[in-house]
Amino acid sequence: MGFTVDELARRCGGRVRGEANRMISRVATLESAGPSDIAYVASARYHKALADTEAGAVIVTEADAALTAKTALIVDNPRLSFARVATLLQREETVGSGVHPSAVVDPRAHLGVDVYVGAQAVIAAGAVIGARTVIGPRCYVGEDVRIGERSVLTANVTLCRASILGKRCVVQPGAVIGSEGFGYVQDGLAWVKVPQLGRVVIGDDVEIGANTTIDRGALGDTVIGDGVKLDNLIQIAHNVQIGDHTAMAGCVGIAGSAVIGKRCTIGGGVGIAGHLEIGDDVHVTGMSLVGASIPSGETYSSSMSAEPVHQWRKNAARFRHLDEIARRLRKLEQKLEENPEGESFE
Amino acid sequence: MGFTVDELARRCGGRVRGEANRMISRVATLESAGPSDIAYVASARYHKALADTEAGAVIVTEADAALTAKTALIVDNPRLSFARVATLLQREETVGSGVHPSAVVDPRAHLGVDVYVGAQAVIAAGAVIGARTVIGPRCYVGEDVRIGERSVLTANVTLCRASILGKRCVVQPGAVIGSEGFGYVQDGLAWVKVPQLGRVVIGDDVEIGANTTIDRGALGDTVIGDGVKLDNLIQIAHNVQIGDHTAMAGCVGIAGSAVIGKRCTIGGGVGIAGHLEIGDDVHVTGMSLVGASIPSGETYSSSMSAEPVHQWRKNAARFRHLDEIARRLRKLEQKLEENPEGESFE
Amino acid sequence: MGFTVDELARRCGGRVRGEANRMISRVATLESAGPSDIAYVASARYHKALADTEAGAVIVTEADAALTAKTALIVDNPRLSFARVATLLQREETVGSGVHPSAVVDPRAHLGVDVYVGAQAVIAAGAVIGARTVIGPRCYVGEDVRIGERSVLTANVTLCRASILGKRCVVQPGAVIGSEGFGYVQDGLAWVKVPQLGRVVIGDDVEIGANTTIDRGALGDTVIGDGVKLDNLIQIAHNVQIGDHTAMAGCVGIAGSAVIGKRCTIGGGVGIAGHLEIGDDVHVTGMSLVGASIPSGETYSSSMSAEPVHQWRKNAARFRHLDEIARRLRKLEQKLEENPEGESFE
Repeated sequence: MGFTVDELARRCGGRVRGEANRMISRVATLESAGPSDIAYVASARYHKALADTEAGAVIVTEADAALTAKTALIVDNPRLSFARVATLLQREETVGSGVHPSAVVDPRAHLGVDVYVGAQAVIAAGAVIGARTVIGPRCYVGEDVRIGERSVLTANVTLCRASILGKRCVVQPGAVIGSEGFGYVQDGLAWVKVPQLGRVVIGDDVEIGANTTIDRGALGDTVIGDGVKLDNLIQIAHNVQIGDHTAMAGCVGIAGSAVIGKRCTIGGGVGIAGHLEIGDDVHVTGMSLVGASIPSGETYSSSMSAEPVHQWRKNAARFRHLDEIARRLRKLEQKLEENPEGESFE
Repeated sequence: MGFTVDELARRCGGRVRGEANRMISRVATLESAGPSDIAYVASARYHKALADTEAGAVIVTEADAALTAKTALIVDNPRLSFARVATLLQREETVGSGVHPSAVVDPRAHLGVDVYVGAQAVIAAGAVIGARTVIGPRCYVGEDVRIGERSVLTANVTLCRASILGKRCVVQPGAVIGSEGFGYVQDGLAWVKVPQLGRVVIGDDVEIGANTTIDRGALGDTVIGDGVKLDNLIQIAHNVQIGDHTAMAGCVGIAGSAVIGKRCTIGGGVGIAGHLEIGDDVHVTGMSLVGASIPSGETYSSSMSAEPVHQWRKNAARFRHLDEIARRLRKLEQKLEENPEGESFE
Repeated sequence: MGFTVDELARRCGGRVRGEANRMISRVATLESAGPSDIAYVASARYHKALADTEAGAVIVTEADAALTAKTALIVDNPRLSFARVATLLQREETVGSGVHPSAVVDPRAHLGVDVYVGAQAVIAAGAVIGARTVIGPRCYVGEDVRIGERSVLTANVTLCRASILGKRCVVQPGAVIGSEGFGYVQDGLAWVKVPQLGRVVIGDDVEIGANTTIDRGALGDTVIGDGVKLDNLIQIAHNVQIGDHTAMAGCVGIAGSAVIGKRCTIGGGVGIAGHLEIGDDVHVTGMSLVGASIPSGETYSSSMSAEPVHQWRKNAARFRHLDEIARRLRKLEQKLEENPEGESFE
């Protein structure tokens, strides 16, 4: 199984130097690669490892190709080419199929061909699992969940009732999909729960990080588009919509009913308020708070990077009097007839 | 099973128009409701769905009642009434009881009447589970844990040793209650762990979100009052106290021994420092840092919403010289004898 | 089993008053302690409990010793001494060994002597578990994981393939170690995954909080040094390195390839950007953003504590015009020939 280096070049781009017919079955690091593996040179830091590698072939830039006599796939962007090769090889990989004897699969669940169900996974009634999908050890797949082909729940993933996950998705351990959202209405002094009746609907080629949580919709659905990538410990509230190919770094929190466009990148630790709209191709820098809608194509920030503490505190103390500072400045200006019509921003 | 629309009106408020004796057994969305379900109209966006619904009855405002010939429960706040009706119907719902054959229940645990224990749940010695409580699939209930009546651990919840959970609580997947807190004392260069000997004590009608963590007390207990609602991915450190009916949005972090009052609302991503006191009825806006105590009834903020990045950075760069700016302003004032006694805040 | 008070004094420091030969087997709170337990007085708040305690011995300051006739271990820092005593007693404690019948242990895994495996734990092929280590209920230990002696996975911990955990580590529930990191490269409009081929390598005496996530390296490893303490809900991205004895409070997020020194303390909710270096003995205050490298020995901050909202907003509104304010100040200065050479920072 696998591909010749030549086939890899034809499918993933690049030029072959050396043994074009060598069979490659796996990607690996330079250090761990063997004769049927392909590795890549990420930067000059790996030149030593390149000299020592036992890889069958290497993915390198034109410049780095000169440093080795190995069979080489010569490309402009080795990391991208390596990622493409890995994706291609992974699709060919035959994951073991079958159901571990300790798993509990309800007879009313439907498993496609070559599905693998790991140790102590639980699959509830009405669940439909697509062909070649892997339900890793200790995952829980709730009632009426639908999962597409070739997806992977790595281990200890929880998919609550009626959630839908597309094809070729990967979900890391501890992720929770389809939990009940935070919907309460005040009734005198207490909070009464508003039933959370919607679903989570996730597209194809989505990846979801460890311990990330995605709540089901209250009415209607929470919707995650195709190709979305979510890092670890992200919170997606009920009825959020995320457009195709948007990527979010760790620890992002998104409040209910926010609508986020396509191809956005959201930095780590960002908070996004509810009921607002972020356009397509928007970028938000790490740890910013998005409190209002953002038009397409913009980069937004409210990030402040740390400084030596005495310096920071000196300025922060002044910040608490900034309105007074502005008023005093205005007074001076008036005295000097500098700005007699007054300020535009007050 | 269920209630007539008339009974719902008597118990939850509102006026009935139409078939007062119709039996209602479930809440549902307008789109999915059938003849024994009741749905509600959240806003004008649902007028089309109202026209098409097959619901047995609908909860609507006086104004929206004119749009349908359906049996109607007419109220001022349909969302609140829907929440009340859902709560009422849920209490009547008979959850299946019994223990799934794959669950592990220690013979020294005590299960009340009509308790349900799901697939691969584990209940340790000394645990006491109240009547009609649901221990969902793959939950872990540790030694000597006590859970009240009619609570629900949805799935994959971890309750560590000796934790106490009240009646009618709901815990979402991945939540961890009673983990050991972050208590270390420096011993030369290293940290030595301080034993965490307390418990987590949680009141009635509390809801806890997915992957939220609540540490046990170091000495004494971590205490969560009645009716508290915690969203997903919240961190509650050891010995924190949270008053009745306080609600916190996702990604809040609370450091050790903070005391938080009743009926507070804490916005998403807020950080609360340790060993401080927040009064009753306090509101904190999203992503603020609470570094000092807050008196009752106040709304506090340190939130800064994102702007276009070039605009933000221009101002942020000036912020790093704010102390200098204030000093230069003062100098000008002195030159102009504007403020000869000096500033009060320096 | 246990130690005499005299032996405790010799090994942990302090002076004994009273019954030096009394055997102590456990630490406890003043309230719950019995005749073979030792408790400590944390502060004056516990003087009443001290008067009532049934502890066999108490750890107290010289001053507090006068308040009790109990056998006393008199020390300068009772909390530190209590922590030392607890650590000592814990090492002697015999945890039950054996494998719960509901656990699934692959025959190709290797368990050291006196290992305990709890209910429904799963241990995969090639895993090597050190002597006296506890794999708690519902933990997952992946292929080729290695765990040192006397470590404790409390419950529901996930250790992914090839992760390495040292001796005497403690991992709280819900923690995920060795998940695939957030590595994608843009290929046209879509993201292609970069294979995550490295491991997580964790030293000795490390503690990891509930629902914390640590991603495996992309190439090379994610490395956590000896004695590191991580609180709950922390995110450690691929290829991060954390030096020995560094401690991080809850909700910290660290982006890929950040290198953090020894003995640092990182406050709760801090965000650390990727590919930067933080020296040894650095302190970062809670909820700061670290956007650039920090030299050893520094304390950094970008924390702003919340104020009454009207006050905060008045100043925050001025902040959005800070560049304009600075320019207007400059203009006045020029008019008054106060600063004719101009500012250094513009």
